[in-house]
Amino acid sequence: MTDLREPEHDIRDDDEGLSKETFENVTKAIDADDGQRLDTLLEPMHAADVADLIEQLTPVRRRAFLDLYSGEIDGDILSEIDESIRDEVVEQLPHDVLADAVREMDTDDVVDLIEDLEEPEQQVVLAALDDSDRAAVEQSLTYPEYSAGRLMQSETVTAPEHWTVGETIDFLRQEDWLPDQFYHVILVDPRRHPTGYVTLGKLLSSRRNVPLRDICEDSFRTIPAREDEGEVAYVFNKYHLISAPVVDDDDRLVGVITIDDAMSVLDEEHEEDFLRMARVSDESHVSDGPFQTARQRLPWLVINLFTASLSALVISLFEGTVERLVILAALMPIVASTGGIAGTQSLAVAVRALATRELTSANARRVIVRELFAGMLNGLGLAVLLGLAGTFILGSPGIGLVLGMAMIANQIVAAMGGVLVPLTLSRLGLDPALASGTFVTTMTDVMGFFAFLGLASWILL
Amino acid sequence: MTDLREPEHDIRDDDEGLSKETFENVTKAIDADDGQRLDTLLEPMHAADVADLIEQLTPVRRRAFLDLYSGEIDGDILSEIDESIRDEVVEQLPHDVLADAVREMDTDDVVDLIEDLEEPEQQVVLAALDDSDRAAVEQSLTYPEYSAGRLMQSETVTAPEHWTVGETIDFLRQEDWLPDQFYHVILVDPRRHPTGYVTLGKLLSSRRNVPLRDICEDSFRTIPAREDEGEVAYVFNKYHLISAPVVDDDDRLVGVITIDDAMSVLDEEHEEDFLRMARVSDESHVSDGPFQTARQRLPWLVINLFTASLSALVISLFEGTVERLVILAALMPIVASTGGIAGTQSLAVAVRALATRELTSANARRVIVRELFAGMLNGLGLAVLLGLAGTFILGSPGIGLVLGMAMIANQIVAAMGGVLVPLTLSRLGLDPALASGTFVTTMTDVMGFFAFLGLASWILL
Repeated sequence: MTDLREPEHDIRDDDEGLSKETFENVTKAIDADDGQRLDTLLEPMHAADVADLIEQLTPVRRRAFLDLYSGEIDGDILSEIDESIRDEVVEQLPHDVLADAVREMDTDDVVDLIEDLEEPEQQVVLAALDDSDRAAVEQSLTYPEYSAGRLMQSETVTAPEHWTVGETIDFLRQEDWLPDQFYHVILVDPRRHPTGYVTLGKLLSSRRNVPLRDICEDSFRTIPAREDEGEVAYVFNKYHLISAPVVDDDDRLVGVITIDDAMSVLDEEHEEDFLRMARVSDESHVSDGPFQTARQRLPWLVINLFTASLSALVISLFEGTVERLVILAALMPIVASTGGIAGTQSLAVAVRALATRELTSANARRVIVRELFAGMLNGLGLAVLLGLAGTFILGSPGIGLVLGMAMIANQIVAAMGGVLVPLTLSRLGLDPALASGTFVTTMTDVMGFFAFLGLASWILL
Repeated sequence: MTDLREPEHDIRDDDEGLSKETFENVTKAIDADDGQRLDTLLEPMHAADVADLIEQLTPVRRRAFLDLYSGEIDGDILSEIDESIRDEVVEQLPHDVLADAVREMDTDDVVDLIEDLEEPEQQVVLAALDDSDRAAVEQSLTYPEYSAGRLMQSETVTAPEHWTVGETIDFLRQEDWLPDQFYHVILVDPRRHPTGYVTLGKLLSSRRNVPLRDICEDSFRTIPAREDEGEVAYVFNKYHLISAPVVDDDDRLVGVITIDDAMSVLDEEHEEDFLRMARVSDESHVSDGPFQTARQRLPWLVINLFTASLSALVISLFEGTVERLVILAALMPIVASTGGIAGTQSLAVAVRALATRELTSANARRVIVRELFAGMLNGLGLAVLLGLAGTFILGSPGIGLVLGMAMIANQIVAAMGGVLVPLTLSRLGLDPALASGTFVTTMTDVMGFFAFLGLASWILL
């Protein structure tokens, strides 16, 4: 059911998390240079909320804040801070604070941090780590950006296949280096190939003499370290994984990815698609200044100047027609803009379906035919409305006929373009969310003006 | 970095999951009425892939498939089938198969299933459950749709606050009703108020005599059963929760939500926003037929006919101007369409920022001012290009001037509309993703034509 009310999109000031009041108190404390007050205000806050606060400060206040508070920035806060301002924050941290912070972090968070830093800060971070963590981070960095290898944490909890529940529990009790969060014990053979895993729930609820092999999960999948992170998020969501072992090219265990990281990636991938469809860089942030914002948006606007010039060119072919029947100038945007909406609709469905693998080469033909018919149907429906409007409001059945016929043609172009353009881009290995919109609306604009003015020249003059 | 290549959006036939080959073999088996071959093909497949397959079949083949295979449909497959075709599938299942399937399911999956069913099928499902599960499902259904109470599973693993690790493990070993997946033991007081939780990892790695209180997680949050599910997904993602206790109005524990369900909700909410921004119902599916597709899209197209008529009205005010200088008709869509793009850019950033709480009343003014300046900057940039084009390509500095001035005005309207419209809708408690696009593009169209033709009348004639 379409639910118009969406409480989760409200502006919430009474919400848990960062309240307007807290935000104002913090800015007052910053402006008053009152470090002690800042400590009192921030002490009870969750690291994620402190990070939000830092992001929402103006750049000037942010620097003042860090002067006062940088000693308290720990690994938790640092891993929560958005990439867009992270290097700015790290540069301002004293090296000992940065070193302390990264020592607390899991290796996957260190990798995430170090990726975006400049060389000198990278060296500070690496130097702060103990040898095994540094080796793990350096190992992760050998995998491509946005791959499973970058996302994984190298701390894994494993057991030989032949162990029992009791042996495993005794082993876990002895260890003092266990990761903060783990959900499975991974069974490995002597060459560290993962062969299955046992959930902690099963381990806790089974008797000590039960062999691990008997309580393994039925469904077990490993993730190649070179897999794209978007694919990882998709697999976690589809198969309801909680954690999954990551393996290298020789199928040996090199790390583990947990669902919270997969969920962040899913969130980012969606955000990226959403913004790309609207022709905005996925690096846009609310904290950006006006110059940054303008620069990020200008390229697509300039591209649109060129595509709009194509429409202008088409219209100029019919200057004589417009001169003789000037009402056409007023009516022509109707066909073009309704085509643009229909194209965007068809496109959005296709882009989502490609992302979720619901649109595959197995059913592409059926979907294309479906779009063709849906476009014809809506074209007919809109044509009837326009025919009536032309006849009874404008008093010209001829104009109604031209509007209607042009609309049918353009709705078909819109529906077909909306599915064929993203399919083509996808086959070429390009992201269909990025450029499809421009292609499709150019098609519907050009077709809208051409069909309407062309038919008008033919029928009305 | 903007990464043009997005392998995860490719059409993958060699992927794990449902391959084109399997799909074709299955359709052949269906067409040959070969139930045994179907069993062989589907036996090794994951429930999620079987569900995908069922969704991708044409309606006619789907019925034939269910005639052959319905005996094998179990709870796992049933919970994976998309809502859009789920009632169709359930109606075709023999009642005993349906009853067996639901008995295997967790209560949250049963709730998810039963919500969409017709009364007679609901009764079959409820009758199949044992008493405690039925009570749990009925309890869940008393909470509003899309609330935490609908999302939670009622099976919880709890321990009194005063227990030790050893007592807890002994208790877990005795129990035979433990949920399939659980990640925490929730501590409750004698009145079933949750007071903290212990991860299974901590439980396994601590000695038997350690009190649970000493190994509780620092950060603990409960979720009210009436909370909106979108809010739940947001909180899980922000605070990296793995599972969270759900409480009723008296703060008593009634269930638990796990991150895999929160991840599905996050995915759905993003999909909904993505489709709504493109003016498509979030009930659109690749499996829909042409009539369904056309009907879902027509309403926004009809609305667009009306808003486009507004533009037509504005243009018709300047018929005299266009008649005297017909090139204006060709040029006028440039200003309007570039404004539309800019408005959509500004809007998309604002809608995302509202959804992620990055845009709040604390920083709304700063963002509005930012947009105003960014709009002016891009307006100026585009105006320079248009001025040059007018002078050197069209040979008319006057037309260049008019184009440029109109562009500046419309870029400002676009940038401001893109942020003010969603902020206003959000304050009214409406979903900004749903209707903002129509408001904003109507504003930029009307302003684009009005400013361009108005300035042209004033300056050029």
